[in-house]
Amino acid sequence: MTGSLVIAGLGPGTEGLIAPDVMAALEAATDIVGYGPYVERIAAREGLRLHATDNRQEIERARHALELAAAGQKVVVVSSGDPGVFAMAAAVFEALEAAPAYLDLDIRVLPGITAMLAAAARIGAPLGHDFCAINLSDNLKPFELIEHRLRLAIRADFACAFYNPRSRARPHQFARLLDVMREEAGPERLIIFARAVFRPEEDIAVVPLAEAKPEMADMRTMVILANASTRRVGRFVYAPRKAEAP
Amino acid sequence: MTGSLVIAGLGPGTEGLIAPDVMAALEAATDIVGYGPYVERIAAREGLRLHATDNRQEIERARHALELAAAGQKVVVVSSGDPGVFAMAAAVFEALEAAPAYLDLDIRVLPGITAMLAAAARIGAPLGHDFCAINLSDNLKPFELIEHRLRLAIRADFACAFYNPRSRARPHQFARLLDVMREEAGPERLIIFARAVFRPEEDIAVVPLAEAKPEMADMRTMVILANASTRRVGRFVYAPRKAEAP
Repeated sequence: MTGSLVIAGLGPGTEGLIAPDVMAALEAATDIVGYGPYVERIAAREGLRLHATDNRQEIERARHALELAAAGQKVVVVSSGDPGVFAMAAAVFEALEAAPAYLDLDIRVLPGITAMLAAAARIGAPLGHDFCAINLSDNLKPFELIEHRLRLAIRADFACAFYNPRSRARPHQFARLLDVMREEAGPERLIIFARAVFRPEEDIAVVPLAEAKPEMADMRTMVILANASTRRVGRFVYAPRKAEAP
Repeated sequence: MTGSLVIAGLGPGTEGLIAPDVMAALEAATDIVGYGPYVERIAAREGLRLHATDNRQEIERARHALELAAAGQKVVVVSSGDPGVFAMAAAVFEALEAAPAYLDLDIRVLPGITAMLAAAARIGAPLGHDFCAINLSDNLKPFELIEHRLRLAIRADFACAFYNPRSRARPHQFARLLDVMREEAGPERLIIFARAVFRPEEDIAVVPLAEAKPEMADMRTMVILANASTRRVGRFVYAPRKAEAP
């Protein structure tokens, strides 16, 4: 029997937004590998081994998945959202680069609905014009790069979707970034805090930057800074399709 | 009976990547509204009316959908990919802003797998680090804004996903943008041309910018300019998770 490795996205956290191809891969799997809370979303069944690991262990987890596939297992590495967006796909290819003996393995990525698309859908269409996605975690990049990129993104008038906005390990950085946003975009610019979207505990707030506070975000919150022309219409927020010259 | 309007994403074009919640909305619908080729993807059945319209008619289509919902129909507006990314959601909210009498309607957006996530999955993880999405169509914004935004995005070292890269109406603009990319990112930077991903006719090419030609893209192609640290590993292309200071 030949093994295989599928790197799959579970979407925002509701069964109704998991792609059928991902469900089929999970049903065919012998081994599920991933961060604990994501692996917990997979129903146990006979013949399926669940390998849940800690948050910071991406490379070890990726290597383990490659080893299992090389040993003939049908492995699915699970991420929430889309595996290619600040999730496990890049870690698996990094592990593969370090272990080229695994290059002949049957490796596939199955996309998913990433958190910013889910959050945007729940509030309207704040990503309806050009936008960017920035991971605010400084585990793997210096904070000064995050600040530099944020300033350029606002000057380009991208809507900005922020992943991993805030953690206990670095409570001051998000406060600092809100100051940068106010400096670059002004106090009236809208910012969206979308927590646990499509879940029963969903909680969404839209405020002008002047009223934004760091504690409005935690690690389960997707934060979206609107672009300059974004407007409210009733309970919705949307970015108009049209734009003027810079 | 009260009407409703769901703005739904059909994903990249394979049944296996349509969310179950979207399938359920399609099954409950009385009316499907959308651009012809997307409406054609919906199976006909008794009691379902299909309203296919031309590509440039987004606002008229959106208004028609609101009118049908107000008349008590269960309407689904379909887009390919995600409806919130260069698709119908922004147009519906624009139409809603112009017709606030419809604000009390039951309106929901259901997200989908947008083209850049599907393309990225098929080639590896080129969007595994910070990235942006730019619509290259100049129907609704001046070309100089596109060029300005592209330059800032490359200076921020975002990977750049380009939607609607090229059309018969503006064949020279994409050639000009490739020149801008070479100027800002250098001739060695990788660029991905991913056509009809997850379809039988899928065709993906990865080349350095020096070898990129405008005719490698058409309107069914997702183009992704890699960031500076993106590498090949075997048949895959991925953006490492780590980054250095600017």
